Amino acid sequence: MVAMMMRLGRLSGPMMATLGPRLFSHSAAGTTSAAGRGLASCGNSLLVGFLRGSVPANDAGVNWIVGVRSCSTVAQQQVQNGKNHASNAAPAADSTKEAKEIVSYWGVPPVKVVNKDGTVWKWDCFRPWETYQADLSIDLKKHHVPLNLLDKLAYWMVKALRVPTDLFFQKRYGCRAMMLETVAAVPGMVGGMLLHCKSLRRFEQSGGWIKSLLEEAENERMHLMTFMEVTKPRWYDRALVISVQAVFFNAYFLGYMISPKFAHRVVGYLEEEAIHSYTEFLNELDKGNIKNVPAPAIAIDYWQLPPNSTLRDVVMVVRADEAHHRDVNHFASDVHFHGRELKDVSAPVGYH
Amino acid sequence: MVAMMMRLGRLSGPMMATLGPRLFSHSAAGTTSAAGRGLASCGNSLLVGFLRGSVPANDAGVNWIVGVRSCSTVAQQQVQNGKNHASNAAPAADSTKEAKEIVSYWGVPPVKVVNKDGTVWKWDCFRPWETYQADLSIDLKKHHVPLNLLDKLAYWMVKALRVPTDLFFQKRYGCRAMMLETVAAVPGMVGGMLLHCKSLRRFEQSGGWIKSLLEEAENERMHLMTFMEVTKPRWYDRALVISVQAVFFNAYFLGYMISPKFAHRVVGYLEEEAIHSYTEFLNELDKGNIKNVPAPAIAIDYWQLPPNSTLRDVVMVVRADEAHHRDVNHFASDVHFHGRELKDVSAPVGYH
Repeated sequence: MVAMMMRLGRLSGPMMATLGPRLFSHSAAGTTSAAGRGLASCGNSLLVGFLRGSVPANDAGVNWIVGVRSCSTVAQQQVQNGKNHASNAAPAADSTKEAKEIVSYWGVPPVKVVNKDGTVWKWDCFRPWETYQADLSIDLKKHHVPLNLLDKLAYWMVKALRVPTDLFFQKRYGCRAMMLETVAAVPGMVGGMLLHCKSLRRFEQSGGWIKSLLEEAENERMHLMTFMEVTKPRWYDRALVISVQAVFFNAYFLGYMISPKFAHRVVGYLEEEAIHSYTEFLNELDKGNIKNVPAPAIAIDYWQLPPNSTLRDVVMVVRADEAHHRDVNHFASDVHFHGRELKDVSAPVGYH
Repeated sequence: MVAMMMRLGRLSGPMMATLGPRLFSHSAAGTTSAAGRGLASCGNSLLVGFLRGSVPANDAGVNWIVGVRSCSTVAQQQVQNGKNHASNAAPAADSTKEAKEIVSYWGVPPVKVVNKDGTVWKWDCFRPWETYQADLSIDLKKHHVPLNLLDKLAYWMVKALRVPTDLFFQKRYGCRAMMLETVAAVPGMVGGMLLHCKSLRRFEQSGGWIKSLLEEAENERMHLMTFMEVTKPRWYDRALVISVQAVFFNAYFLGYMISPKFAHRVVGYLEEEAIHSYTEFLNELDKGNIKNVPAPAIAIDYWQLPPNSTLRDVVMVVRADEAHHRDVNHFASDVHFHGRELKDVSAPVGYH
């Protein structure tokens, strides 16, 4: 069946592609801006500002947005005749009247996120309301002293993992950071997913922990998106990332199912190591062994950094983020150590 | 090793618990409100309003918040002496001076989300800025006519699944809705997770689709949290949910890895069925076969409904949400059918 599905997938491409070219001639006229509805409706003036109903007609972003919309199939607007079936093989409509009736087939409007000054927001992987200023005052030296065998197991496991990592990367801190983020972004996603499934199975709320862990994963992914801009991975770095993800994802998945308190403790210690690693990175930058290049644009926008920020500033905020994740994970582990469940304890909000 | 870990976990409980009682005597004095830092720092006045640094001293919420903080271990504030190790077995500190030095061990502040009027926000499973008003104007009758074999396979698979569902639930639409949501919340999470892992492996951004799919999963989970309040599942409903999740999660995981376009199409059709199912639910409510009870408080807060809303209003907004998810998933499938990847097409924002 799998083979058949793959074959069908390939066959279907050309069939659908026949619709493609003419779709690109349609404008986005007559569409409504439902994109920001959900967020804007909470009365948040900033979001309303970002999610305006229209963008200037000559804005460069408009063409791009129209291009995006056209990726979907289109159909004539549904005729409410009691039958539930509409054709998505609609004839091309060139006249103004007909053009107004044409909407994106699925009604999913193009993303129209604009800055306060009216310019188009340039990032898809994060939105203006997800940006923040890192709290650099966080204590970087905090450490959870392993109190029992489970803690010690977690601690020494992480310490042992550092040996091959040191050997592989040596002084290549840029690559090391990138590699580290591909690993660090896994636990939050796995934990969030497992808590989500548990919440569904047990008909119970999660105390906000699903969101909190997913936010951690997204923040770590943003670190990766940033370091990608300053370091180019080599083929063996990529190969390593794929292998490590395959092993670590499954190991963490299993580990979290067996003992969330152990899993969170491991992440707490991983983050402690990450802080150490970024401190070394900073030392190398200060010594001049790594060039302190200007900060990538994505980092400036994500952490709301001044325009003249450098790589050093980026490493500083990333390190602060890791310290926050260390706190959250040790905290989560502590909750379990007290014999309580995460759902009983309100999760931190926007703590990264 | 697994058995050992489990045993260690149990042993460690009493060790940690010894710290517990005295922690409850400490106030949250001297702590900073970093909780809202991330979100509040984006200059969003609404969020700042929700995430205030303090709540009134006599507010009932404070005790609860202090209780929450005490779940974590505490330590004397880290002495910056160059050594990275602090003890978390700190002595109890009763004097004012000492009390100020005591902070929540991990510095994770209690959640202090308050409404605009200063009352404490009562939900952990969602926050004020995640609430919205559903767009009831969405076309509920839209249908993707299966164009090729892959579409037809998806369509008939979903149609076939309806037969046992109809037989099992018959006219118990409340339970059926609840069951449906435990299934409907899986694809978004699985899809989001797989795209997240792909983004990490390939060092590439996701076009915002990770967030979009995770938002869908969270929205579906909120539907479940709502229906839980109006319907009590029986033991065989719970058993069915567990069995169905075990099968569906793995099937969808595999399906999404093999063919995301097929997986999204299946979800599109599942959502079309969900709309049908909720329409039947509304018919039964209108006929008086199901009592139109007042809407649960969680629904009123989540969808910003008027205080006197009823179950019928809730079903209306849930059905509109499902229609939005139908659109997003058919759209995502269409993107793949055009031979493009989701990351190349900006994901919808807050479209639910």
